Amino acid sequence: MRLRNNPKAMDIIQENSDLVILDPVIYKGKWQHVFSNQNKIFIEIGMGKGDFIYQNALKYPDINFIGIEKYPSVLVQAIHKIKKQDMPSNLHLMLYDAISLEEVFENNEVDKIFLNFSDPWPKKRHEKRRLTSHKFLDVYKNIMSKDADLEFKTDNRGLFEYSILSLHKYPMHLDMVSLDLHQSEYAIDNIMSEYEKKFCSKGPIYKLIARF
Amino acid sequence: MRLRNNPKAMDIIQENSDLVILDPVIYKGKWQHVFSNQNKIFIEIGMGKGDFIYQNALKYPDINFIGIEKYPSVLVQAIHKIKKQDMPSNLHLMLYDAISLEEVFENNEVDKIFLNFSDPWPKKRHEKRRLTSHKFLDVYKNIMSKDADLEFKTDNRGLFEYSILSLHKYPMHLDMVSLDLHQSEYAIDNIMSEYEKKFCSKGPIYKLIARF
Repeated sequence: MRLRNNPKAMDIIQENSDLVILDPVIYKGKWQHVFSNQNKIFIEIGMGKGDFIYQNALKYPDINFIGIEKYPSVLVQAIHKIKKQDMPSNLHLMLYDAISLEEVFENNEVDKIFLNFSDPWPKKRHEKRRLTSHKFLDVYKNIMSKDADLEFKTDNRGLFEYSILSLHKYPMHLDMVSLDLHQSEYAIDNIMSEYEKKFCSKGPIYKLIARF
Repeated sequence: MRLRNNPKAMDIIQENSDLVILDPVIYKGKWQHVFSNQNKIFIEIGMGKGDFIYQNALKYPDINFIGIEKYPSVLVQAIHKIKKQDMPSNLHLMLYDAISLEEVFENNEVDKIFLNFSDPWPKKRHEKRRLTSHKFLDVYKNIMSKDADLEFKTDNRGLFEYSILSLHKYPMHLDMVSLDLHQSEYAIDNIMSEYEKKFCSKGPIYKLIARF
């Protein structure tokens, strides 16, 4: 998601260094120090307003969660939302571009990646910007542990069709495909993002789980 | 599809040997003799009332089409429908079980397989009966020519989800996936089966194209 630029965004981010990791590259290979435990690390790339990762952090206290967002104005919205509530110790955020995540995570350091309602970039010439294109999969492969899951949800049919083929051809192992998540057996464990709550009545939510 | 048993079905089939190949095993490796040309052979497995393959035969006179049906009572309906119209010389039908198609076709003899609205067999214990299960893919692989396409359409979400994973894991190459065929760029060339015309307003038609 994108928002109108908030000129104070960078200031607000700086002021919230308890929640936001301001210089994440120094923790490459050492993220367990940030959380003071050896628990697994799950990340969400493009967390938007942060609802999904916040709910996950509450539900799974024995897993460490890192929400990653590229746009300062969006990250600020997530900061405000989370700060209004109890801040779980197993959650941190960062401002970073997914394509550069190898600067921040060591090989095998990430145990799950969530992609939720990513920008579909529908134009063919923007294919490389889609978070399920091979350029991004190269990055994920390097930072993910063996057999770690990539979980991808979207309501965008074109992006989901593209993603099935992109992951299949990479090749990744496709373990689950649901063409109507909310009507499936997987609905019960599903944590909805804000966007998902708003748009799920308009059409099906698609989901897949894949491994390298 | 299944129908109430028609006790005269086998008689009707025997009487229509101009359209139905009654003893297809004798043509294994020699199907070009049946059509008196060297054109490619496209088959539909489970052709139902035959609308789809009949329309294909009219549209593509330089391709040989064979419609295959397991149930005599269903095959009779296709015979009646086709016989009411001009019978194209590039179309034949046969009564056969897909699992035994290696008795009827030589290696590499089939240039495309169509599966349209196949029985979903939703119960897990019936998985092996689904026409996209690995047992059937083994058969298709042996009779299909190199790079021949398997084209699969269904309105059944569960069967489509299963089929994506089954073909992916086999492994086949997935070349196309559409989660709403009638709203896609592929709609323009789509030939609809009778079932498809009837049920496409109830929800999306899914389609995929794959190769071994």
